[in-house]
Amino acid sequence: MPNDVHKLTVNLKEHSYPIYIGGGLLDDDTILKPHLGVGPHVIITNTSVASLYLSRVEKLLGDIPFHTITIEDGEEHKTLDTFNDIITQLLECGAHRKSTLIALGGGVVGDIVGFVSASYRRGTSFIQIPTTLLAQVDASVGGKTAVNHRLGKNMIGAFHQPAAVVIDTNTLDSLPERHYLAGVAEIIKYGLIADEKLFGTIEDSLSDVLARDARILNTLITRSCEIKADIVAQDEHETGGARMLLNLGHTFGHAIETLLGHGTWLHGEAVACGLVLATQFSQAQGLIDEAQCERAITLIKNAGLPSELPEQISTDKMLEAMSRDKKNIGAQQTLVLIKSIGDAFVAPDCDTNALRAFLDSLR
Amino acid sequence: MPNDVHKLTVNLKEHSYPIYIGGGLLDDDTILKPHLGVGPHVIITNTSVASLYLSRVEKLLGDIPFHTITIEDGEEHKTLDTFNDIITQLLECGAHRKSTLIALGGGVVGDIVGFVSASYRRGTSFIQIPTTLLAQVDASVGGKTAVNHRLGKNMIGAFHQPAAVVIDTNTLDSLPERHYLAGVAEIIKYGLIADEKLFGTIEDSLSDVLARDARILNTLITRSCEIKADIVAQDEHETGGARMLLNLGHTFGHAIETLLGHGTWLHGEAVACGLVLATQFSQAQGLIDEAQCERAITLIKNAGLPSELPEQISTDKMLEAMSRDKKNIGAQQTLVLIKSIGDAFVAPDCDTNALRAFLDSLR
Repeated sequence: MPNDVHKLTVNLKEHSYPIYIGGGLLDDDTILKPHLGVGPHVIITNTSVASLYLSRVEKLLGDIPFHTITIEDGEEHKTLDTFNDIITQLLECGAHRKSTLIALGGGVVGDIVGFVSASYRRGTSFIQIPTTLLAQVDASVGGKTAVNHRLGKNMIGAFHQPAAVVIDTNTLDSLPERHYLAGVAEIIKYGLIADEKLFGTIEDSLSDVLARDARILNTLITRSCEIKADIVAQDEHETGGARMLLNLGHTFGHAIETLLGHGTWLHGEAVACGLVLATQFSQAQGLIDEAQCERAITLIKNAGLPSELPEQISTDKMLEAMSRDKKNIGAQQTLVLIKSIGDAFVAPDCDTNALRAFLDSLR
Repeated sequence: MPNDVHKLTVNLKEHSYPIYIGGGLLDDDTILKPHLGVGPHVIITNTSVASLYLSRVEKLLGDIPFHTITIEDGEEHKTLDTFNDIITQLLECGAHRKSTLIALGGGVVGDIVGFVSASYRRGTSFIQIPTTLLAQVDASVGGKTAVNHRLGKNMIGAFHQPAAVVIDTNTLDSLPERHYLAGVAEIIKYGLIADEKLFGTIEDSLSDVLARDARILNTLITRSCEIKADIVAQDEHETGGARMLLNLGHTFGHAIETLLGHGTWLHGEAVACGLVLATQFSQAQGLIDEAQCERAITLIKNAGLPSELPEQISTDKMLEAMSRDKKNIGAQQTLVLIKSIGDAFVAPDCDTNALRAFLDSLR
């Protein structure tokens, strides 16, 4: 194992698994192998990531038998059709119950491969190799897998934990700027939810963060994964409230994504704007003071992330889209709100009149 | 609760649930309600069952809000397309995470609704109301859910346990003869796997069984569910060997179903023939004596079930189809074989040459 590798463990009741974080892990053939089942294994990636990293993962497998499946790149392919295409190819190449699926790519690849792994022959094991910052700090940890339905994001899926997560921070060098910043938004989210110190670190070293400094990135990714692993360990299947905290900014964000059309804004961009809206609504409700609210907005703006609800989205449409959130039970609008930086909480029955007034006030 | 209701419990690590068995349970409004989540709930059934029993289940729900989704009848509709249609309707009718899905019908309805329930918004709860004998003694208990893929049966699915199983044995009165006998095949299977006494009871009261005598049926269904519940409790996710025992006759049976085209033979008919083949192969291997083997074949024949491999199926095709069984890991052919009536075991690495010779010997 190279120096400077962090290893975390996600401790769950029935199944614990490691997250490895470090620069150059895709060239270290000691990490993947102990987590593989019985071959043939199947690497599943997308066209863009394949051209960058596939040959290196293939090299890691050495003479262990494997197949490769390549899907199209983009959120618009995170569908039940793509899911079925992958299943067909798995059947054709003879993948069995003890084969390990290796998800190489960003959140879309991870989510869809995770759901395939949960469902293929009623469940196989899989390993996440996330290559985007957003997937590294969020999607690849915690076992949420899904595909989208035209009526809503992530409506078809499963909780299915990976056998291991391998984060090679060097893969971030190839990430386009918008995608990189979308990941920074999720790191800011962890600071807002649970760790004022992390938030302060991002504020203090924002220029290094934006320059993708390897040392600061390693620290931020490790701390983000720690926070997520802690929360997931408390509430693996989102049956208690703990896991809902991870949804800070997401009810607003998902609504924006749906209303703009998926893919117009990146998920992390929509979440950034959602973080601002959730914080501003928390302030409107008298929950967080103005100075703290301003700190949140300033950091998100300085990180080059969107902070304003797009003009074309009406209050009515926003409320309707937010009402379809998976967290809601019946007519009650659940939101994650914030008392101070590092202290978010679940508000299970928000006053929709107050929410309407808040959204109107943005115009 | 009416007299003569049996209540069993399936004891699992994280979730235990009751199975109610009795005549007239569909007219007892005390049974379903304690197992419901937060409305609206959704009854999912097929066109044939809807005309027989839907109004009675609707009546059981009384003034609790619910929706109804009706799918086409038949194994050919146990597909990812039907799965997606149901998801669409669930989203359209506003079903949320705490809604309960109620699967009213045979094994196809139960399997597909179970997989929908496992996947919709990453998991909802569901109740099984099986209306065929096969579903009552097998599909509805144990949490195996799935849809078929054109390359194999039940290739896409999940382990997802119901909140409760409600078996009204009166629903068997409406069952066509072939479907009824297909269920008897699975009861014979339980005798062969684990309970010589049950097997003897079927032999001794075969005329009552074939006449659908309520008392004997109640006994046989209860004992079958007990055996299945015991095995499932030992091995919920089929990671140990115990649960594989339930597959006695199924490797042969699934291959026959695939090769004849799904729907030509009923699942239980293919299993009946598979039981004969597994027992005969066990005898050919010197595992079970001739007298016991003959008893098994005789009971299956006397029950009016198929006992001979269809002529048009060649040894090569049979071997190839059997090699695709979900139980197999790599090139090893796993089979469930039998030492005596009531004593089956898993043979993880069968001699495929011996299997070929056995299949050839049937010609």
